[in-house]
Amino acid sequence: MSDPLNKVLEVLSGEEDASTERLFEIIRIPSISTDPAYDDACKDAAEWCADKLGEIGFDASVRPTTGKPMVVGHYTSSNGRASPHVLFYGHYDVQPADPLDKWDTPPFEPQLKDDPKYGSVISGRGASDDKGQFMTFLEACRAWHDATGDLPVSVSVLIEGEEESGSPSLAPFLEANRDELIKDFALVCDTGQWDADTPAITTMLRGLCSSEVVVTGPSRDLHSGMYGGAARNPIRVLTRILGSLYNENGAVQIPGFYDDVRPLSPDQQDQWNALDFDTAQFLGEVGLKLPAGETGRGVLEQLWSRPTAEINGIIGGYTGPGTKTVIPSKASAKLTFRLVPDQDPDKVVSGFKEFVMSRLPDDCSAEFLPGQGSPAVGFDTTGPAFRAAAGALADEWGKQPVFMGCGGSIPIVESFKSQLGMESLLVGFALDDNQIHSPNEKYNLTSYRKGARSWARILDNLSNM
Amino acid sequence: MSDPLNKVLEVLSGEEDASTERLFEIIRIPSISTDPAYDDACKDAAEWCADKLGEIGFDASVRPTTGKPMVVGHYTSSNGRASPHVLFYGHYDVQPADPLDKWDTPPFEPQLKDDPKYGSVISGRGASDDKGQFMTFLEACRAWHDATGDLPVSVSVLIEGEEESGSPSLAPFLEANRDELIKDFALVCDTGQWDADTPAITTMLRGLCSSEVVVTGPSRDLHSGMYGGAARNPIRVLTRILGSLYNENGAVQIPGFYDDVRPLSPDQQDQWNALDFDTAQFLGEVGLKLPAGETGRGVLEQLWSRPTAEINGIIGGYTGPGTKTVIPSKASAKLTFRLVPDQDPDKVVSGFKEFVMSRLPDDCSAEFLPGQGSPAVGFDTTGPAFRAAAGALADEWGKQPVFMGCGGSIPIVESFKSQLGMESLLVGFALDDNQIHSPNEKYNLTSYRKGARSWARILDNLSNM
Repeated sequence: MSDPLNKVLEVLSGEEDASTERLFEIIRIPSISTDPAYDDACKDAAEWCADKLGEIGFDASVRPTTGKPMVVGHYTSSNGRASPHVLFYGHYDVQPADPLDKWDTPPFEPQLKDDPKYGSVISGRGASDDKGQFMTFLEACRAWHDATGDLPVSVSVLIEGEEESGSPSLAPFLEANRDELIKDFALVCDTGQWDADTPAITTMLRGLCSSEVVVTGPSRDLHSGMYGGAARNPIRVLTRILGSLYNENGAVQIPGFYDDVRPLSPDQQDQWNALDFDTAQFLGEVGLKLPAGETGRGVLEQLWSRPTAEINGIIGGYTGPGTKTVIPSKASAKLTFRLVPDQDPDKVVSGFKEFVMSRLPDDCSAEFLPGQGSPAVGFDTTGPAFRAAAGALADEWGKQPVFMGCGGSIPIVESFKSQLGMESLLVGFALDDNQIHSPNEKYNLTSYRKGARSWARILDNLSNM
Repeated sequence: MSDPLNKVLEVLSGEEDASTERLFEIIRIPSISTDPAYDDACKDAAEWCADKLGEIGFDASVRPTTGKPMVVGHYTSSNGRASPHVLFYGHYDVQPADPLDKWDTPPFEPQLKDDPKYGSVISGRGASDDKGQFMTFLEACRAWHDATGDLPVSVSVLIEGEEESGSPSLAPFLEANRDELIKDFALVCDTGQWDADTPAITTMLRGLCSSEVVVTGPSRDLHSGMYGGAARNPIRVLTRILGSLYNENGAVQIPGFYDDVRPLSPDQQDQWNALDFDTAQFLGEVGLKLPAGETGRGVLEQLWSRPTAEINGIIGGYTGPGTKTVIPSKASAKLTFRLVPDQDPDKVVSGFKEFVMSRLPDDCSAEFLPGQGSPAVGFDTTGPAFRAAAGALADEWGKQPVFMGCGGSIPIVESFKSQLGMESLLVGFALDDNQIHSPNEKYNLTSYRKGARSWARILDNLSNM
């Protein structure tokens, strides 16, 4: 361990209460981005972030957009090296707090509570998502600055105020400030740990593409008495096609669907197997008990390394109360496909269309409504920055970080990649039961304290990579 | 041909214009039962019917109900025989006439028009359904009365005023007047001919039963990023089950579904084959071209003699605009089953439940909402009344009547059977393109005139059966 890092960690230990109080300050600002009634609070939160960055030597400013302001700050390290220069991303806005009557204590009056499972937790809206998380990084920077008068690497910070409301201003802002924001890579603190004692780095985000199919049979709705038996029912056609979308082993039957899917490396498989993931608990929490996807693949493997075809909605015919003896003219379904690295969204959607068309009776037609598509993002787990972060986390937590996949997407990571050509390193300290977006949101005090210590170590390692 | 019948047919020939004018009179009364603005018109129509029955010797009266009044009339023949005593059924109410701007001439101003296909047609709302139809019978009775001073058999008449609005008063009225209304059998004039030159008797009405299934997977809606692949999607479960409801040949795969279905008799098959039914035209009119049911069975055989399983509605997940990456908790479908004679509705519904349950994953549940059920009605085509009617129709039209099935149900026939234990004989003179319930409803003048002559002959034959 470097001598400066020792000092930084000592500062963090000494500052624990002050650090928690700073987090409380920003939680107290009800920066709900989706509700215009909180516009001023969002501005206050942005100002607060810029002030705090300024206190530790950042050249920080609140930057107006047509929506909520952005906070941007830059710090040039005097350690004499030009790289890496990292861009840290977080967001100061939070989800609405309702239903208010479900909160044990008011959402914007943060406090420490005893949690039977985790010990001390910080309660409040944004305690985890994302105020607690981004503050771990700012506290690490503050400690470095306090202990050494400098940061070990050059750091820029972008704190957004619209993450919970679709980030409408983000793309134009990135575009207008490309040169200022493109750094060697991004650090994003908006993901989770494996469990309360085990750190994680998120190494893969599944991509997403979608298709909506509308099957038309008869030219108008028909009476099932007059036509039933002889006339083609598009619900029957659609259910038959979708009913054959998976084989008996749960594998998607779209031609070529798995062609570009990389096999899971034995090392990665071993790591995930060693995690003792509790499938029964994971499924039991949502009322299920049997893994539903490809036979023989575990839940983690499915969520983190396998593509899916999911029917998100279906509708056709009469859906009101009671009975209507109709053979409808149309039936439709919405599907999304979760993608893994190397899968091409366009190819998957084309494959689905081909799958439907090849099974469509000659006197039916199918229309495909345009969808969206974004490829999966996979990170190189062998690169120096990744190894620097993994080592730092192992040092702090006493165990190797889990290399997790993420079944969903994280839009900022895709934006950094597609708009700025910049890779991201995803380290976060949230837990699945932090109740983000729900009443009684919380963040483990351990996550907060050891999160800041983790970032302090990561910055140190990055300066030596 | 009996001497009295000759006279009756002569009277009908001489009365043709007066008979058409009487039909025009009742068409002019806008007796739309579903719209309270036409309550008085409904009363006027009922009075008109009772008056007309009175003119030809019926003991007729308008009978109030909590809805539209019923018209009941009785005539005891003096031919010295107690049987058969028949109950004729028709309805004086009509469908609303809108959209009015689609009518070539006003709906309640009946007139004769030249039709390129059929020659002279009677235009107006109710011209076919059911004013033109029930007037064929009343005109036959009038002619018998004019020609002979009597009717050849005893006749009671029930003319309803709520057929187009669900007949809410019918069941209580039948119940309260059982003894008065139970006759040897019912004559119902609310069905069609085979074509403009070929009469028909409807010999089978399919029954109907229904089931709605709600499949529940996860206990709440899930995010497809976080759970997709590992968590069971009830839309996938439902489409897989419904997708296996039919085999490759279109046969319903519910266990025992066809067990009680009578094979079609070779005679009946021969008659239907001889009809040269135009499948391409029948399906082409609704934008289809391939018969969709059981492979190897013609459209008529399917509609008139085979049961069906039809998915009338399906819904699950997100069905609004755009995409939502949800794995829903529930998905549901509404099904109806058209039944043929000897099929038990309860057994069919139970078979469907069994079909679903046997295919349901262990961690899903299925709820079945209660539906309705009524068995098919098949008439004995070898009985004396049936033969009397078939012979009369053959005499009038110069060709044997087609023994048609009816893919749908006719509620009055079921009510007569279930409430009064009374069989029905279904003879009607409508054509598929009479545009009933639509603008420019019409009834062939030939249907009207030869319809009355047909009933005159049927009454004669019934008196000799």
